Amino acid sequence: MSSSPRLRSLNIDNINPHVKEAKYAVRGELAIKSEEYRAQLKKAASQDPPTPPDSPFPFDKVISANIGNPQQLDQKPITFFRQVLSLLEYPPLLDNEKALRTSFGYEQDVIDRAKWLLEEVNSVGAYSQSQGVPAIRQSVAHYIERRDGYASDPANIYLSAGASSGVNTLLNVINASPKTGILVPIPQYPLYTATLAVLNARVVPYYLDESRGWATELDTIKESYQKAKAEGIDVRAIVVINPGNPTGASLSADDVASVIKFAAEEKLVIMADEVYQTNIFLGTFTSFKKGLRDLQNSDSTGKYDNVELASLNSISKGMVGECGHRGGYFELVGFDAEVQAQIYKFISIMLCPPVVGQCLVEMMVNPPKEGDPSYELYNKEYNGIKEGLRERAYALYEAFKKMEGVELGEPQGSMYLYPTIHLPPKAIEAAEKAGRKPDDFYCHRLLDRTGICLVPGTGFGQKPGTLHIRTTFLAPGTEWVGRIVDFHREFMAEYS
Amino acid sequence: MSSSPRLRSLNIDNINPHVKEAKYAVRGELAIKSEEYRAQLKKAASQDPPTPPDSPFPFDKVISANIGNPQQLDQKPITFFRQVLSLLEYPPLLDNEKALRTSFGYEQDVIDRAKWLLEEVNSVGAYSQSQGVPAIRQSVAHYIERRDGYASDPANIYLSAGASSGVNTLLNVINASPKTGILVPIPQYPLYTATLAVLNARVVPYYLDESRGWATELDTIKESYQKAKAEGIDVRAIVVINPGNPTGASLSADDVASVIKFAAEEKLVIMADEVYQTNIFLGTFTSFKKGLRDLQNSDSTGKYDNVELASLNSISKGMVGECGHRGGYFELVGFDAEVQAQIYKFISIMLCPPVVGQCLVEMMVNPPKEGDPSYELYNKEYNGIKEGLRERAYALYEAFKKMEGVELGEPQGSMYLYPTIHLPPKAIEAAEKAGRKPDDFYCHRLLDRTGICLVPGTGFGQKPGTLHIRTTFLAPGTEWVGRIVDFHREFMAEYS
Repeated sequence: MSSSPRLRSLNIDNINPHVKEAKYAVRGELAIKSEEYRAQLKKAASQDPPTPPDSPFPFDKVISANIGNPQQLDQKPITFFRQVLSLLEYPPLLDNEKALRTSFGYEQDVIDRAKWLLEEVNSVGAYSQSQGVPAIRQSVAHYIERRDGYASDPANIYLSAGASSGVNTLLNVINASPKTGILVPIPQYPLYTATLAVLNARVVPYYLDESRGWATELDTIKESYQKAKAEGIDVRAIVVINPGNPTGASLSADDVASVIKFAAEEKLVIMADEVYQTNIFLGTFTSFKKGLRDLQNSDSTGKYDNVELASLNSISKGMVGECGHRGGYFELVGFDAEVQAQIYKFISIMLCPPVVGQCLVEMMVNPPKEGDPSYELYNKEYNGIKEGLRERAYALYEAFKKMEGVELGEPQGSMYLYPTIHLPPKAIEAAEKAGRKPDDFYCHRLLDRTGICLVPGTGFGQKPGTLHIRTTFLAPGTEWVGRIVDFHREFMAEYS
Repeated sequence: MSSSPRLRSLNIDNINPHVKEAKYAVRGELAIKSEEYRAQLKKAASQDPPTPPDSPFPFDKVISANIGNPQQLDQKPITFFRQVLSLLEYPPLLDNEKALRTSFGYEQDVIDRAKWLLEEVNSVGAYSQSQGVPAIRQSVAHYIERRDGYASDPANIYLSAGASSGVNTLLNVINASPKTGILVPIPQYPLYTATLAVLNARVVPYYLDESRGWATELDTIKESYQKAKAEGIDVRAIVVINPGNPTGASLSADDVASVIKFAAEEKLVIMADEVYQTNIFLGTFTSFKKGLRDLQNSDSTGKYDNVELASLNSISKGMVGECGHRGGYFELVGFDAEVQAQIYKFISIMLCPPVVGQCLVEMMVNPPKEGDPSYELYNKEYNGIKEGLRERAYALYEAFKKMEGVELGEPQGSMYLYPTIHLPPKAIEAAEKAGRKPDDFYCHRLLDRTGICLVPGTGFGQKPGTLHIRTTFLAPGTEWVGRIVDFHREFMAEYS
């Protein structure tokens, strides 16, 4: 067959230019290369006898520290969640409760939860309402009420296929023209910039302050906002990732209030990405919903009425870590009813979020309680995961602290560390020759030498002249940390 | 709190106008109303004692015949699939295979499949590669090879969250500007027109021929294409839904070849929506992939080289009916490598399709084989579902045939009937007074009187001056069919 591309309808120069502009480094060139390495290692290992006898690379395992994917690494799913899901997938198991209990240790609350969810969803193989199963939205609303001490209405809860799909929905509805702009923190999780690129809308970047533990600086936000306005951009919304990705920083209640005040003043929608709300080591989590209700309660002028807030959460993170199940939700506060109807219609085109993911959302927000038969195990598993994350974060932090030219603050939360790296001029020259940004060059070398996949700071954004790397702290053990340390020493020596 | 909308950032006049333009009637006003009725019925029934003692409506059950949602109605999931999924959700079940066998009847092939899938996915709670688990893509490729007799490359298979998400991906990449147009059959499943509206691209409609069982007419397609070109539209692709939705019609091998020849000549991408490929009562299924390879083999001039084809399939339909699990795939043939890289990047922004849905794709394309322990039951269930669909389709067909002013051809496939309805002038006047299209008016009255939710032809498109209704034939029993017959008689009498 001829391979002449001129016969084709589609080529790189005539497809959607906005798709082309989108960048998503978390799963970009490095991640693709790491998957190829993994496949080659698997193939080499499956030869009988394994030939070549040694790994085709100077490592025998690929470590994906590029993405927050807990169960790909060490994290075990929480037993209660998965036992319930097994019953939802095959309800005839419920016909022999005795065998479930005696042969498999299913507790009564597992069986009860499964029965209740089955009643509500009918079958996990059936489409649900586009907004999500009503009873599950009710559970989410109760969780938010317990968390914040303020009412939450299930009619304003939208279940989604992970938080990503919720962000996609909201940005699709908000962005009306190429002049619409959204304030996005830098560094940020690149879902935001990628989606805005596809939508041909404007990213209005505001830098977080690395010197203050990646805090949100109101003055910086205002400056970015004013600059964008002066350029004719119709700034509609501000994205806040709290706790931060890739930074891990959690906002203080005061910082939350400042952002809300600013948004109220400038009539901006607040998009609060709160998927790491339980992944906190330092500080505490203040939800934007609570912050907003507090302000509304303390004010009599009505200036915080109608502040529009969309808060997102997910089953992918926290101690749940069920990202492969694609579940999440967002709550809308203060939105116009007609706008909400359009949001509903938009999500209805994709029918509904995965129903098993919805059921996991339900269990995440409504886990076994003290006194329930599954509570003790649930609690042990939950705390074990939390403690494991903390330990690994600090082990990695201690290693990074000792590395030449690496600077970082104490781990605060989320699943990431985002240290600054200072590379010698010769390394920067070598990167330039290779046609790569220096941090990208560094990460490629690291992958090629150690099998460890990180994401360079260019993938998240960084102040001009600074370089960073992002690593998850999910991979088990410390052996891989040692490999980074060794690699870094050699790299620095090579280019010094 | 003040409810004055002027304080808000977002209102119906400043959000994305293209989202506003999108219409998706399958889950539109009627469907929302039907869900409200369902909720009210549930609430009334849960009163103790039930008050009011009678249903608040002239019916005691809502029947959602508006959407192909098999398991919401009668269809039981296939045992093999769900047993495997139960093990994937809770792998410790595999620690007691004996109890699985003796207490729950799990066969060895269930256990083996679960172990193999777990090896390949690691955990269903982990993200997979964005394109889907490699081993599952390999199974899909093998299925396509067996079906068509031509090679299929797993590198060109993309797993997706239902076929809808695949369509969304492809249309996002293909549509480059407001002048890009896509040929779409009318009537059509409104995913296409809705997505093109959101993307601000042009629908280039071509009518199917109702008088010939909703066949695809090449002359009509050419005429639409020429007209669009004359209007300056850059027509890039043609959508074919085969078997049809809402029509059920399956294209003959000759019709498939004609469409491919036309696409080759005019350099159009073919989007073959083949989600009903196993739902066929009349005629046979010819995949576009086979049609294309046949033409390429029989031709020595090279004029079919580089024809770009995207074929979509889903776990939601067929005899699988697992729509709540959101699984599907598409195969790309003849696409430019750089374009495929952009498609990969686009899907990577949403991370990956639900992993449980991916596992269901694997089992759909690779079900138990003759001689396997689960084969007999699988086969019995599969054929039982198929036969049940056929029976209900014909029962509904016989009922419609006898109704005054209703015309329709014999059921051919998919999950729908799409009869023409002729309404009396007085009904059309009444509809106008109510501010509704006549078929929409008819469906609202039907829902209010009987609890049965259909979709009016306006939701799919119809030739000017014609009216249709679409109903699924999934609901069990015939009692509801009788309710439609009675309603129709009364409606016609009222407006005669």
